[in-house]
Amino acid sequence: MSHEAGGLSPALSSVLERFLSGEVTALARAISIVEDERDGFEDLLHRVLTVGPSTCRVGFTGPPGAGKSTLVAGAAASYREHDERIGVIAVDPTSPYSGGALLGDRIRMNDLTTDPGIFIRSMATRGSLGGLATTTKEVLDLMDAFGFDRVLVETVGVGQTELAITAAADTVIVVLVPESGDAIQAMKAGLMEIADIFVVNKADRPGADRLAKQIRQALHLKAGHALKDIPAHHGVDLSNALRKERTTDAEAVEQGGWSIPVLSTVAHSGEGLPKLLEAVEAHRAWLQASGQLEACRRARARNRVQDVVEREMRRVARRSEFATELLESALDDIAERVETPYSVARRILDGLLR
Amino acid sequence: MSHEAGGLSPALSSVLERFLSGEVTALARAISIVEDERDGFEDLLHRVLTVGPSTCRVGFTGPPGAGKSTLVAGAAASYREHDERIGVIAVDPTSPYSGGALLGDRIRMNDLTTDPGIFIRSMATRGSLGGLATTTKEVLDLMDAFGFDRVLVETVGVGQTELAITAAADTVIVVLVPESGDAIQAMKAGLMEIADIFVVNKADRPGADRLAKQIRQALHLKAGHALKDIPAHHGVDLSNALRKERTTDAEAVEQGGWSIPVLSTVAHSGEGLPKLLEAVEAHRAWLQASGQLEACRRARARNRVQDVVEREMRRVARRSEFATELLESALDDIAERVETPYSVARRILDGLLR
Repeated sequence: MSHEAGGLSPALSSVLERFLSGEVTALARAISIVEDERDGFEDLLHRVLTVGPSTCRVGFTGPPGAGKSTLVAGAAASYREHDERIGVIAVDPTSPYSGGALLGDRIRMNDLTTDPGIFIRSMATRGSLGGLATTTKEVLDLMDAFGFDRVLVETVGVGQTELAITAAADTVIVVLVPESGDAIQAMKAGLMEIADIFVVNKADRPGADRLAKQIRQALHLKAGHALKDIPAHHGVDLSNALRKERTTDAEAVEQGGWSIPVLSTVAHSGEGLPKLLEAVEAHRAWLQASGQLEACRRARARNRVQDVVEREMRRVARRSEFATELLESALDDIAERVETPYSVARRILDGLLR
Repeated sequence: MSHEAGGLSPALSSVLERFLSGEVTALARAISIVEDERDGFEDLLHRVLTVGPSTCRVGFTGPPGAGKSTLVAGAAASYREHDERIGVIAVDPTSPYSGGALLGDRIRMNDLTTDPGIFIRSMATRGSLGGLATTTKEVLDLMDAFGFDRVLVETVGVGQTELAITAAADTVIVVLVPESGDAIQAMKAGLMEIADIFVVNKADRPGADRLAKQIRQALHLKAGHALKDIPAHHGVDLSNALRKERTTDAEAVEQGGWSIPVLSTVAHSGEGLPKLLEAVEAHRAWLQASGQLEACRRARARNRVQDVVEREMRRVARRSEFATELLESALDDIAERVETPYSVARRILDGLLR
């Protein structure tokens, strides 16, 4: 990272220039550069963030098969009718046992891909090793700064990584279906913690009304802080990890003022979609009026600084010649129990840190 | 971390003393201290590792419902017949959609818990945020150093975290059942990469022979490096992440010499168990004769040093007063786009790193 004027390589400067003039190919290129963490990607992000506008991010999450893609496609089509430029990011988990099957949904978005007013990008999370989740959030920043009227983010809510990405949206819509289990499961999965709007999709199926009722009850419970009763390794740890990103200014959220609606949709027919989009607008208006939007952005900035610092420290630790040499020369001593990984780590840290 | 003689608090010194004299309650206490990352836990680990012996670690992994717990219980009972002292660790994932159901298996181990020659501990992985996987490996080190004749580790092979923990075992047994899908899925899940021994459990069920045949074919394919054909975000990325821990001395593994057996068991009746335990012994003998055990331990030590360095750097970044103050004072500038998270991170790093 250098961040000086003209600090970008000629190639990155050209990408930046074309990005700022609104070329979609430059956005795609910038996303690849950030995803791959190529040399200078943080400088590029720095420059984009100093000049780019920032837009409205709407996240859609929920279990596989809940119809998120269809809802996103419907929402995008509806916004297009008002001539908004829309960015869509679909974040796919790479859970080994679910494999590629989850991607099937993506096909339904194909109708939209011929529309030049819509930019769609699908990306993998690649799990936890290596902090890819941070990079994913940085891709969202790029989308944010490119000048779309709205950015829609779709994630499958199956793990902390995905939920953390979702939590980076201004408005989070949690999509459930009767088949996806009951509200207690959603609570355990941490979905209650991140939802600004609940949608019971496939509302024409049996059990939809019951699920909606359960969610409302669970929301009441949550308001009464009964969440504490959930075992720590399920709901609470998770929710704390997520809260970090969204609500460091906790009072703003605790004093609330936004009452989470539980809506019903049939994504395939478009039933309920207008009401959902109204709720998104209402939430947006509340975010702005309450100062919560500003608070969220500050929390996000705080978190991003910490992530970038940690990533760079990791990089320094891995690439430092001093650390590598010390480590290699100490392996025999560790084998002979003269040293341990802890004493060696201490010596490396003393050399790297001020 | 201090690592000086007598650097431990009186409380930790007492735990250490009792640990070294073989008190099981002190082991349990030490595990809690490490799991919770209490003050001084790394000093305690340092002291334990300089003096403790090190034992043989056998890992059991595979999809939920494969019968791992029953196999582990059977193996433990069999070792007990030869008066070995056995430690068992069951690592439970906390996947939000699977919830506590996976824990049901644990009940089958209850028969063993009244035996003072067996120590059983169940622990959660708590996902990726915060590097808990490293702590889990450190708990294995404690078990290792306590003086058991053998430590058995059971993990559900459903994610990178769990697989990475499994890869910390000397001998990894991958348990599959006909119902858990075909060998291709196991390959995609990275299980081929970590298996030293394959077990087809519930071998009395239909499809068992077919699965065993598929696994053998897949192993041949793998030997021929056909693994490259698997999409990068499934098999390859994952396997690289795992290889890191076990085979930094890559030649030793490439030249091989260990031919992975594919065995059949019926865990509930104990059928096939003696052959499995023979294979474990044979693998152990090979590890020692080939120098691979030493290579694995060096790789593990290298990895541990890096993990501990990164964890401490993260801690420094989070707890540094300088960093916190700089960050808080910069939030307004970030909001006004005078600064970005990247320029602020740079200033923090300049202050923290040499």
